[in-house]
Amino acid sequence: MNTQSAIHAKPTIINGLDVDAAVATIASIKADKSLGRFQFRARNTWIDGGVNRSVIRDFYGAGKEDTSRDTAFEFTNGEPPILLGNNEGANPVEFLLHALAGCVTTTLVLHAMARGIAIRELSTELAGDLDVQGLLGLDDSISPGYEQISIRMHVKADCSDEALDDLLAYAQRHSPVCNTVCRPVPVVIERAST
Amino acid sequence: MNTQSAIHAKPTIINGLDVDAAVATIASIKADKSLGRFQFRARNTWIDGGVNRSVIRDFYGAGKEDTSRDTAFEFTNGEPPILLGNNEGANPVEFLLHALAGCVTTTLVLHAMARGIAIRELSTELAGDLDVQGLLGLDDSISPGYEQISIRMHVKADCSDEALDDLLAYAQRHSPVCNTVCRPVPVVIERAST
Repeated sequence: MNTQSAIHAKPTIINGLDVDAAVATIASIKADKSLGRFQFRARNTWIDGGVNRSVIRDFYGAGKEDTSRDTAFEFTNGEPPILLGNNEGANPVEFLLHALAGCVTTTLVLHAMARGIAIRELSTELAGDLDVQGLLGLDDSISPGYEQISIRMHVKADCSDEALDDLLAYAQRHSPVCNTVCRPVPVVIERAST
Repeated sequence: MNTQSAIHAKPTIINGLDVDAAVATIASIKADKSLGRFQFRARNTWIDGGVNRSVIRDFYGAGKEDTSRDTAFEFTNGEPPILLGNNEGANPVEFLLHALAGCVTTTLVLHAMARGIAIRELSTELAGDLDVQGLLGLDDSISPGYEQISIRMHVKADCSDEALDDLLAYAQRHSPVCNTVCRPVPVVIERAST
């Protein structure tokens, strides 16, 4: 490929991801491991009852503060009537399922790209079981969190079932949200002095 | 209080929550522990690249399928340019922070109500650190998940600092999302046969 054709070459896209950009990112992190460090953030304000709102915009990653977002994302937590609310938004444990679904999906699509596997269709159904006796403090032997979360995945890809199962297992082991859920992650709460 | 005044009595509201409704819910669950069991759900569809969308509506709780939501909630995961996206939405690890912020907040407000403590203001700032070498599979010694999540809480309440710290510790121990993060929760992925 001469210089002229390189300039006009279209980027190679697999599963909607720019392969050259991904290769460049990985090369940068391999050359300077500190570029792999990210810090994500959210600010949340209580409104009333079970309603509160988060603002998400800035984060640190690849050695600098990100400035790519002109406007912030905003999300509202609410509760259904059975949990003393008026469905002002999905509730926090439902948002956690959304985060988990998205992370497993993106991790799978990313590593499929790395293996040259084209994903044609991908959808998931998540279900998480919990007992609100834990939340309410009625029984200390019951964890307030999810007991288990199941993900049923429908996926069509241009590879064998064996290659797909191997990819799926790899995605599960490398998904940030999946690992935050299935491993113990410390949560440190500090009360700011007023 | 005679019958007439009871009919016209306004509900007692603390922190935006109906105290009588909360007491009734707790009494029901104490009388029949199976009513404490909930199952929350999400359905997610991959769009392209790091973009996917969840639909959240139905759930099971208090002994039956909930039918209170006329319309479903929909949320879009995206990624910033540094992570090969175009900021189509917040990303999954950011949604997890939103879930965690909301859950700690609602759990605190709920148990403040149970203690008769009025919360006047409550906001949180969350930060979670992770190393994308884990996600990318560049170093198996690095967990892909958050290493730690810190929550800085600003709270004003009609109680002493000691009572507030006790309430805060109680809320942390009883928050469903906080326990899902700080304890290991199994995630089971099953591939549906096509």
